[in-house]
Amino acid sequence: MIALDAMGGDHAPHEIVAGAVQAVREHGLQLVLVGPPRVLYEALTDHDAAKEIPIVRAEESLAMHEGALASLRRPKSSIAIACHLVRQGHASSVVSAGSTAGVVATGRLRLKGLPGILRPAIAVPLPTRPTPTVLLDAGANAEVKPEMLVQFAHLGAAYAQTAYEIEQPRIGLLTIGSEAEKGNKLVRRAHELMSELKGFVGNVEGHDLLTGMADVVVTDGFTGNVALKSMEGAVRYAFGELRETINSSRLARLGAIPQRGRLRQLWERLDPEAHGGAVLLGLNGTVVIAHGSSRAKGVTAACRLADELSKGGIVTRISERVGKSHRLW
Amino acid sequence: MIALDAMGGDHAPHEIVAGAVQAVREHGLQLVLVGPPRVLYEALTDHDAAKEIPIVRAEESLAMHEGALASLRRPKSSIAIACHLVRQGHASSVVSAGSTAGVVATGRLRLKGLPGILRPAIAVPLPTRPTPTVLLDAGANAEVKPEMLVQFAHLGAAYAQTAYEIEQPRIGLLTIGSEAEKGNKLVRRAHELMSELKGFVGNVEGHDLLTGMADVVVTDGFTGNVALKSMEGAVRYAFGELRETINSSRLARLGAIPQRGRLRQLWERLDPEAHGGAVLLGLNGTVVIAHGSSRAKGVTAACRLADELSKGGIVTRISERVGKSHRLW
Repeated sequence: MIALDAMGGDHAPHEIVAGAVQAVREHGLQLVLVGPPRVLYEALTDHDAAKEIPIVRAEESLAMHEGALASLRRPKSSIAIACHLVRQGHASSVVSAGSTAGVVATGRLRLKGLPGILRPAIAVPLPTRPTPTVLLDAGANAEVKPEMLVQFAHLGAAYAQTAYEIEQPRIGLLTIGSEAEKGNKLVRRAHELMSELKGFVGNVEGHDLLTGMADVVVTDGFTGNVALKSMEGAVRYAFGELRETINSSRLARLGAIPQRGRLRQLWERLDPEAHGGAVLLGLNGTVVIAHGSSRAKGVTAACRLADELSKGGIVTRISERVGKSHRLW
Repeated sequence: MIALDAMGGDHAPHEIVAGAVQAVREHGLQLVLVGPPRVLYEALTDHDAAKEIPIVRAEESLAMHEGALASLRRPKSSIAIACHLVRQGHASSVVSAGSTAGVVATGRLRLKGLPGILRPAIAVPLPTRPTPTVLLDAGANAEVKPEMLVQFAHLGAAYAQTAYEIEQPRIGLLTIGSEAEKGNKLVRRAHELMSELKGFVGNVEGHDLLTGMADVVVTDGFTGNVALKSMEGAVRYAFGELRETINSSRLARLGAIPQRGRLRQLWERLDPEAHGGAVLLGLNGTVVIAHGSSRAKGVTAACRLADELSKGGIVTRISERVGKSHRLW
């Protein structure tokens, strides 16, 4: 069962409800909508779905600009109640398109941590092929210790095993040179600790993130967030320049017509919404953070990801991996 | 006068010499080639240019895989001698396509620092429009203090003033949220210090780097290097996917023909070589680090950049800015 925060995101609640209806009807997922019952009932009625999806009451919500502090002051927000449902065992995962800072803070506060896990981390799949590279931490922890980076490796490996069925994920450490002595203190120490890890392939650099040379790339939340957003910005930039190039002459414009559809497909594949969103790993329950601007399609994808991860037993897998790794240090 | 390290780079010395000849003949630059005289004389003779460009002897060189330590052990390498020429006042700038770590270490060791400057930083122009955004530090300092970030702002501002004639450059601080309380300790403290800086526009995020919302973006060398390489990787990825998209159907392939030339132009504009390369700022002399894979064209562009910056008085400008800023802390 997925607890879906119906009030998180720029297009809540209507696009969230529309996404929920799709998830239930087209993919057979089980979910519950969390938010103000009257509003949600009406939105469901618009889809003729009032009898298909249960509603759990939450009259408050966190606005998109609100961060960690607001989440402490709103124990009855839709995201807090969604987490509560997981904590009580009524649901196995939470999906929200709310502000990342708000969802992370609420998840850390309201869900149980896993034994031995120092910090939960945000994992984001990058659109490499044949399977995505999982980058983490993408922003939950701006300040980390080397031991946390080692744990992030386990979290990411459990993700790659569960979502992509990679038996022995290749794990890389993000740094600024491919030699071990490069990078900062944090990375050098983490490199030492990780060298005992199965599947560790060593240092990777920024330009390796989209080449698929590792299944999991580990970094602190500050660097990871900058890297992720820099890549998003660069892809947007390249497409913008390309559009201008295509439109810059009539001949080129005519030439581009047969490609339009394919370019759109490519753009959609790169769209973070299509992948279901970021996942907060390391808590006793799966938390999927959909893009704040998600529309129905993105919400459906996020629900499918949450379902896949929780059915694949990612929480158990993480516990097992981290339990074993305790022997290392 | 530019001291050009003829032995640095994947295609040294032949492409370096060819670039030097172009720089002298097509752009009227004054330069001296540093390296083994016999080899360079022969290379110059191939271009019929033996009488046009003087040679300064350096029998040793740093290999591309050699970093900071090797530079200490080779006081007579071509890059060390090139720096020596600046230190002695025979040249005003150094250009090298050698390994970044080697050039940075040699520059720091052999050139004088500027009074008050804590650390030199690597500045890289990003291909925004109408003028490039200068990102620094792109990798010279993996570990920094907040005061260094404030100085990097001055270094970058002097660059934007000199190279792009921007009177009051807009300065941004790279972080992971647009609010002041976000980011790590380093960035929060730097934000406080920088708030008194003229032209400070506040925090910027990874996706802002290519939108041109700031003329200068300041960060530590670890984050800056990861961001830069992530963007390069993402642009390469987007073009690779695009090529595949274009080639994926005959119709699309036919359609693309009129665009080929324009796509190549776009790719070239994004090519770091076209911009002349990175600049090590904060030393008593301008050091331009061309891409290691530079061919003649890239070497010429690097020489032009060095000439422009040193004629524009960037060293004096930095001294003035940092001298004034001393009053702040």
